[in-house]
Amino acid sequence: MIVIRSIKKLSCYIKGQKKKTKTIGFVPTMGYLHEGHLSLVRRARKETDTVVMSIFVNPTQFSPHEDFKEYPRNLKRDIKLAESCGVDVIFYPSVKSMYPEGYLTYVNVEKITSVLCGRSRLGHFKGVCTVVTKLFNLVQPDIAYFGQKDFQQAVVIKRMVKDLNIPVKIRVCPIIREKDGLAMSSRNTYLNEREREDAKVIYKALCKAKEMILEGERNLKVVTGKMKNLILSKPTSKIDYIAIVDTENLNPLEEIKGKILVAIACWIGKTRLIDNLIIKV
Amino acid sequence: MIVIRSIKKLSCYIKGQKKKTKTIGFVPTMGYLHEGHLSLVRRARKETDTVVMSIFVNPTQFSPHEDFKEYPRNLKRDIKLAESCGVDVIFYPSVKSMYPEGYLTYVNVEKITSVLCGRSRLGHFKGVCTVVTKLFNLVQPDIAYFGQKDFQQAVVIKRMVKDLNIPVKIRVCPIIREKDGLAMSSRNTYLNEREREDAKVIYKALCKAKEMILEGERNLKVVTGKMKNLILSKPTSKIDYIAIVDTENLNPLEEIKGKILVAIACWIGKTRLIDNLIIKV
Repeated sequence: MIVIRSIKKLSCYIKGQKKKTKTIGFVPTMGYLHEGHLSLVRRARKETDTVVMSIFVNPTQFSPHEDFKEYPRNLKRDIKLAESCGVDVIFYPSVKSMYPEGYLTYVNVEKITSVLCGRSRLGHFKGVCTVVTKLFNLVQPDIAYFGQKDFQQAVVIKRMVKDLNIPVKIRVCPIIREKDGLAMSSRNTYLNEREREDAKVIYKALCKAKEMILEGERNLKVVTGKMKNLILSKPTSKIDYIAIVDTENLNPLEEIKGKILVAIACWIGKTRLIDNLIIKV
Repeated sequence: MIVIRSIKKLSCYIKGQKKKTKTIGFVPTMGYLHEGHLSLVRRARKETDTVVMSIFVNPTQFSPHEDFKEYPRNLKRDIKLAESCGVDVIFYPSVKSMYPEGYLTYVNVEKITSVLCGRSRLGHFKGVCTVVTKLFNLVQPDIAYFGQKDFQQAVVIKRMVKDLNIPVKIRVCPIIREKDGLAMSSRNTYLNEREREDAKVIYKALCKAKEMILEGERNLKVVTGKMKNLILSKPTSKIDYIAIVDTENLNPLEEIKGKILVAIACWIGKTRLIDNLIIKV
């Protein structure tokens, strides 16, 4: 495995792979890898010849008051984990090389980025779309892998790829959870012992929603009300949103039918966590 | 030469060319071809193996009150002209295939798109950047060719390509003029006899500016004042802007030195025309 910092060197490497007609699998990450990321790598390893992982804490997807500076970073640890799963190249660019002086260009998906996480994280998806477009242009992957935990991100990226005719396939892979159900996230490291215990309630609330819906509850306010009560029963919790929406356009459901998305964003202490469940009715 | 309407067929064709390691030259146009476009084709023909021209009157770069519907179209004529200059493929997509139902994604370059033409044509460059990104993703050109007549467009596209790491080289080719100096434009067809006569004043004003600056005039207000008087001496004319700016960032000049851009946008009758001249001081 090699670690490439320079954009020029990466372009050279990618050209070489294309010449050899190798297919490229791409796993974009912000590092501080966990089993969620590694499951994407394993899938890429199975489906493509060359696996490229980017590690880049992207400043443009953080609002000024958010945790860009505090976001956990540990390249040494990431290198070991990536190598153990068969990554061929880690692309680890500097902020300055990705956004040099005079940078002015942004990619934005409208409408579906202003609901759910987009409502409380202004500009977040514009930053995500911009950096993902840049990385796609640099890595030129045949297939790119995203986690279902960031469900809205996956929907937005799929929309962007389709709209801009970007020649890449998008795979969205299942959420990987801790034994007690908490969805894996680099931000879980922020939680103290008490908060970590309380955080279990997020998945519990999702499971309760699933149970209620599968048992026939059709009043969504009853379902979200129950979820809200569960979440707020923990003293460290605060709700950003609880939503039951269409899996394609993220609109609130008019009828519970087909594939539906139950999604939560909440703070446990000062840590904002998200999780979701797709339910087939 | 072949004409391809379908995005799928174009992708197939491009894949085939890439497999044969052909280099691709790309000339994006809105059709109604003139010598300006053809000069780009000839340059592409010299520098690349396969020359693709797109003909697409892009609705997203027109404001609601602008001339999208009236814009001149004549595919038969364009096919003949393109073939005679050695175009290999004309890509001629429908609006519906480029912007299908549910379309939501836009590419925007900030700051340099809100001056000059961007001031009077709100959203114009957002539409241009979006369609050019889409076309680049579809055609995957090694080199793309733009005319200097749309100078701001060329500056914006170069910025976008650099910022988004799009793997394409941009060539900006000289303005082609009628014998009397009028810059070639598909919109010249809108002019009646009287207006066509008056339109000559645009290039005359640019030449006057060049003469004054090369003769030592350093007061830009004196230069633009003279240009304004010349343009307004024609009864059918109305000025949008006259600007003398930096060729890279399009900012007003603080000092006349190096390469500078003198640019005009004005209406002759109801027709909005643009032209420019680069002066080396």
